[in-house]
Amino acid sequence: MDAWQLCALLTRRELTAQDVVRACLDRIAEREDSIHAFTALDPDATLSQARALDAGPVRGLLHGLPLGVKDLLDTADFATSYGSAIYAGFRPQADAAPVALCREAGALVLGKTVSTEFAYFTPGPTRNPHDTAHTPGGSSSGSAAAVADRMLPLALGTQTAGSIIRPAAYCGVVGFKPSLRRVASGGVKSLSPSMDVVGGFGRSVRDVALLGAVLTGDARLTGWRELSSADAPRIGFFQTPAWPQADADVQQAWAQAIRVLYAQASDCKDVVTPTHFAELIQLQKDVMTFEMARALSHERVYHRERMSAPLNSLLDDGMAITGAQHAAQLSTVASWRQRIDALFTRHDVLLCPSTTGIAPEGTATGDPLFCRSWSILGLPSVHLPFATGQKGLPVGLQLVGRFGQDHQLLAAAHWVFERLKR
Amino acid sequence: MDAWQLCALLTRRELTAQDVVRACLDRIAEREDSIHAFTALDPDATLSQARALDAGPVRGLLHGLPLGVKDLLDTADFATSYGSAIYAGFRPQADAAPVALCREAGALVLGKTVSTEFAYFTPGPTRNPHDTAHTPGGSSSGSAAAVADRMLPLALGTQTAGSIIRPAAYCGVVGFKPSLRRVASGGVKSLSPSMDVVGGFGRSVRDVALLGAVLTGDARLTGWRELSSADAPRIGFFQTPAWPQADADVQQAWAQAIRVLYAQASDCKDVVTPTHFAELIQLQKDVMTFEMARALSHERVYHRERMSAPLNSLLDDGMAITGAQHAAQLSTVASWRQRIDALFTRHDVLLCPSTTGIAPEGTATGDPLFCRSWSILGLPSVHLPFATGQKGLPVGLQLVGRFGQDHQLLAAAHWVFERLKR
Repeated sequence: MDAWQLCALLTRRELTAQDVVRACLDRIAEREDSIHAFTALDPDATLSQARALDAGPVRGLLHGLPLGVKDLLDTADFATSYGSAIYAGFRPQADAAPVALCREAGALVLGKTVSTEFAYFTPGPTRNPHDTAHTPGGSSSGSAAAVADRMLPLALGTQTAGSIIRPAAYCGVVGFKPSLRRVASGGVKSLSPSMDVVGGFGRSVRDVALLGAVLTGDARLTGWRELSSADAPRIGFFQTPAWPQADADVQQAWAQAIRVLYAQASDCKDVVTPTHFAELIQLQKDVMTFEMARALSHERVYHRERMSAPLNSLLDDGMAITGAQHAAQLSTVASWRQRIDALFTRHDVLLCPSTTGIAPEGTATGDPLFCRSWSILGLPSVHLPFATGQKGLPVGLQLVGRFGQDHQLLAAAHWVFERLKR
Repeated sequence: MDAWQLCALLTRRELTAQDVVRACLDRIAEREDSIHAFTALDPDATLSQARALDAGPVRGLLHGLPLGVKDLLDTADFATSYGSAIYAGFRPQADAAPVALCREAGALVLGKTVSTEFAYFTPGPTRNPHDTAHTPGGSSSGSAAAVADRMLPLALGTQTAGSIIRPAAYCGVVGFKPSLRRVASGGVKSLSPSMDVVGGFGRSVRDVALLGAVLTGDARLTGWRELSSADAPRIGFFQTPAWPQADADVQQAWAQAIRVLYAQASDCKDVVTPTHFAELIQLQKDVMTFEMARALSHERVYHRERMSAPLNSLLDDGMAITGAQHAAQLSTVASWRQRIDALFTRHDVLLCPSTTGIAPEGTATGDPLFCRSWSILGLPSVHLPFATGQKGLPVGLQLVGRFGQDHQLLAAAHWVFERLKR
């Protein structure tokens, strides 16, 4: 069952929150030793919150749904380490805004999930549930793996480069990154304010729509009716200039999607690549590098010895970028965000690669290459897992929407996903 | 002496950091009982840090300068309450990014300064140093008052609606709000991410340029040479549609400025008001109200009884604004930010009112009316105190710059301020 179905049963009181929590805890007990998705769990507290929910009125859209929270978000009742030894055992004073919003809507925070070190590349212990020799991707490693392994129906993640879409793809779940700045970010460790977004993972598009509606306060995210073939979305096929780095598995998933969608959606076209689109990759890297070096100033100045070499090296690179360069880049970003909007007069959504291939073997969390442009542009995106690559590992593609039209994107993603899954 | 002069003497070791700290502490001991600018002070720790600085190499642009930090920014060594009883005695785990950047550059954090409740309208105990029956303005009340009363050479503040420019005007100091997102905001209590900016206060434009260079990492902020009359800035005079609410004191300051600048700057023109410019006021209010209600979700859900009635009422209003409205408003904001840029092809900087008049009598912190548009547009601005209104209280005007051109704005502001002060 996906979170959407669970939610319906919970709301109609045909299922208790305690039942759902117990089922999750059983699965976790069985699997966590292999997957290592969590940094903290509190079964007793969660069960007691579930009992209270079962005894009271229906609280909201997430009533009784167990939720995993990426350890980059503050929680008042769980230690929060941002994936770093510097903050081992740290207990924040308050819930991050997205956590409080989910709790207000009835969600039960079952545990904190593994993040890479400050959401950069140094991995935590999490393994890919489809094959534990492979990475789950990063940085929202634990959230994606826990949902993929059916330990949880829903989990929160964050994306700065590719930290929602990439682990969703590697673990074979649906991942949703909302439009930039639609979700409150207070209490989320700040890395690159020009890009940081809170979103999440579920097993269906409807699941992440439920979570997205709570995070954005926009009821339209769950309010869409099923699209008929007559009002199928106008899909732009956009391999992007990075396409040569997509491997055979992604090429195959792409061919499969094109075939299905051309047959069923009447208005599909190749996207005409905007001039200089390829520059967005480097722009995303530069802005992120500058901003992370400043955002992590406390850690950089006082705790250098407790950070990994790759992170220290990133922060050094960031301090070498001047504020003058950053100001110019922010202006370029603003122009791009206006320019990209023109694409959406011809297409409702863009179909694009999510990753270069299946989850790599080993612990390195993979390449966010195909996510960087959408992150710096601040556009909403959804990963759709519908294919299988080498070793039976999942592959899929992402749909990218117009800024602020997250509800349109999700309606289109649901329509597309129903057709690709078959 | 302004911070710039102190900095020169400190860097040349003609003055010790200990001397400067002691002078500040003496002034604070004398005046704090009347002004109430601080929430926390630690003279011993600051003096011991000063001794360490005096014994070591010159650290950076702020070497040995005592700094006040608005209590909306986290500090690892001072309690941080965000102006709210909810966080009384709370000790953060880390310095906010701007605090760490200032310390890295050699600043000595002497104390935390009073903020209104979560930087909204419920005032703290701070009084206006020019007349303690009047407000210092808000929300950066303590920082503006401490600098105005010569307790500190420099202090950090934040602006979401008018929380730097307004208290700077009421207290008669220079206030600087940088371009949106040029300054890292990690560890600063998030209120409205579409507008929140960290900046500060000093006694001269050079002072805030020094602080701004450290906060933005842009050396051009202090690198400008004095402008000659030949390259005087092209100033656009822009009363804005809210002008009818400017009182006689502001009108007089305006007339004085126009007279001086017309005579000395060769290319001054009235700004042609962009169509629908007046809508920015309501847009700023709506976006802030929506975002504060979500940013303060933890407090809203769990600590309602410990917040003031005006704040609870704002948060209720914010929850009544839908995410759909917010998404539309974010798009409008993005368009406006592009549109406003066209003004700066004709003008280098805009001269605009800062406040409706002098600091009001009583504790209410005054109206941010003349700051709201520039806050939602994300443009950099500097308040210049150069005139005197009723009861001898300070009045001034603000200069607004092009996005990302903070260095040009500061060079122009220095040029203008030198002429208006005479």
